Amino acid sequence: MDIQKTASQIGEFGLIERIQKILGKAQNNKIILGIGDDTAVIDISGGKVQLLTCDIQIEGQHFQRDFLSPYQLGRRAMAVNLSDIAAMGGTPTFALVSLGVPPDFPVSDFEDLFRGFRDQLNEFGATVIGGNLARSDSGLIIDITMLGESKRDIFLTRSGASPGDRIFVSNFLGMAGAGVAILRHFGDKFPQKYEKFVNAYRQPSPRIHLGQRLAESGLVTAMMDISDGLAGDLNHICEQSHCGAVVLQEKLPFDPDLAELKNITKKTSEEMALFGGEDYELLLTVNRDADIEKLGLIAKETGVRMHEIGYLTTEEKGLVLQNSAGNTRPLAAKGWDHFSLNET
Amino acid sequence: MDIQKTASQIGEFGLIERIQKILGKAQNNKIILGIGDDTAVIDISGGKVQLLTCDIQIEGQHFQRDFLSPYQLGRRAMAVNLSDIAAMGGTPTFALVSLGVPPDFPVSDFEDLFRGFRDQLNEFGATVIGGNLARSDSGLIIDITMLGESKRDIFLTRSGASPGDRIFVSNFLGMAGAGVAILRHFGDKFPQKYEKFVNAYRQPSPRIHLGQRLAESGLVTAMMDISDGLAGDLNHICEQSHCGAVVLQEKLPFDPDLAELKNITKKTSEEMALFGGEDYELLLTVNRDADIEKLGLIAKETGVRMHEIGYLTTEEKGLVLQNSAGNTRPLAAKGWDHFSLNET
Repeated sequence: MDIQKTASQIGEFGLIERIQKILGKAQNNKIILGIGDDTAVIDISGGKVQLLTCDIQIEGQHFQRDFLSPYQLGRRAMAVNLSDIAAMGGTPTFALVSLGVPPDFPVSDFEDLFRGFRDQLNEFGATVIGGNLARSDSGLIIDITMLGESKRDIFLTRSGASPGDRIFVSNFLGMAGAGVAILRHFGDKFPQKYEKFVNAYRQPSPRIHLGQRLAESGLVTAMMDISDGLAGDLNHICEQSHCGAVVLQEKLPFDPDLAELKNITKKTSEEMALFGGEDYELLLTVNRDADIEKLGLIAKETGVRMHEIGYLTTEEKGLVLQNSAGNTRPLAAKGWDHFSLNET
Repeated sequence: MDIQKTASQIGEFGLIERIQKILGKAQNNKIILGIGDDTAVIDISGGKVQLLTCDIQIEGQHFQRDFLSPYQLGRRAMAVNLSDIAAMGGTPTFALVSLGVPPDFPVSDFEDLFRGFRDQLNEFGATVIGGNLARSDSGLIIDITMLGESKRDIFLTRSGASPGDRIFVSNFLGMAGAGVAILRHFGDKFPQKYEKFVNAYRQPSPRIHLGQRLAESGLVTAMMDISDGLAGDLNHICEQSHCGAVVLQEKLPFDPDLAELKNITKKTSEEMALFGGEDYELLLTVNRDADIEKLGLIAKETGVRMHEIGYLTTEEKGLVLQNSAGNTRPLAAKGWDHFSLNET
């Protein structure tokens, strides 16, 4: 007798494989990128593509209302989706919002949630155009479908990198993960100096302008956003570009105050940088012969720091972490699997 | 002190009003139809529009897994979204599927769900292009965003009707509501002769081809699908077209076997036809001078019966039900409000 497998036993990526098998190769030649990527890409006229991504967030699973005001929750849910558009170098256009709303949800909170959606979208000239409301007896459910546009020949995916390419990330890593740990530890009465970490969690900045400038620059070979931690997300680029990678331990960019949070995060700064999720920074690779000064200029113009953290190697070398003495150890491609509820 | 109002106190339409107030009038001139309609409409190039609709379905609230196999559930969830595209006379193109999946959900059920999505979409040449998976600890959650296309100058909305227009519906009314009542009463062991009702609930037919032919015909002034019952949905057309309506009692089209189900449905055939939900038939209005023979031809070609059930009047006359003796009574615009969990 076969043992009936469950969703949590095969995990998110196991389920996605099953979906791909069932749906098969799309017969529609307008589909440039379909199932399996964070964002689908459809050919539209005028040398453009339409980007489509969606993200379902369930109370208790993806967020706690204790940690975020309704306004912050609205902004954040939209930012997470905008980040997927940023990761391709696209321009966000329209959002559809499906909500499961608890019957006792205060109307003023509901209004604040939509103010958050609106304000976050307005920063980038995008708009809510539709949606759906339903009653939920098990907490708030927010599912956003975000649309965007890009030029046909410049949008970036995870699959264009080659061995030798240099790896960059925007800003600091591990900030948002530290913010969550601070909120868990102190609640809302956290020391003022830790506000930058809490804000990194509560108000992630979708790197729309940076992503657009990077896509236009022609420098970048592959790009994605860091939502599940650097190690896991770099692994996605490596898998889809058929590369390995060396991450230089001392180059990992983290805030100087992160180290003192070790008692609260229960992790070293390095672990936070590698495995802390929810950062929504950009991870990108650049051809080794590219004019890196141009990258510096883009960073300066957009006001977002860029840090070089390593380089790609051949696929069989896998992912390794290397220190300045030249010692290496395998870098586990840990990522958050929402099904197993364990880091895998 | 203000009393804090809750979502259930102001209901779905109250919440939508608040959203419209907060979001304001869209500044984007590509938006032809935004918040407030089932389906958003965006101007795209080549004389075309893009249609975008989404629908969140929560286990226990919108469906029970007892009543539907995973395959049926997948087909049905997709059909509900396709029906919104049909209601505008559009052609479905792509779907994004966001799922909240219980950790103990069997993988084989998950696969059957996607086979249902696929088969229902394939009937109309549409495809799943993306989505998102999350763990849900409170039952299955299915949120589908459906995209479609139409020509710029022919897509149909709820707002184009005028007093004097004739009202038509496709097929029979109250079928799906009877199907649900049968499943509640008999479980899966229902008498064979009631299968047509159960099938109407389990496998609604999105009226894509009928909708397209109606849109192309130029006969139709307003159209929508009947998801919450004829009375409530006709009220939407009346509100948005600033009309009243007379529904002719003896013209309500229902299956001849519906009457004998009264003990099970606890409702007369007339009540089922007026207030039974989930039918996903088309409701449309036609100019009184239009060539109705053309409508008959479309019905014949698409194999879907069409029934004339009344006519529109001026707004101040409201909605009335009129019998053959000429007696009238007000027709309550009852619809299903997912928040109040009462017919309102």
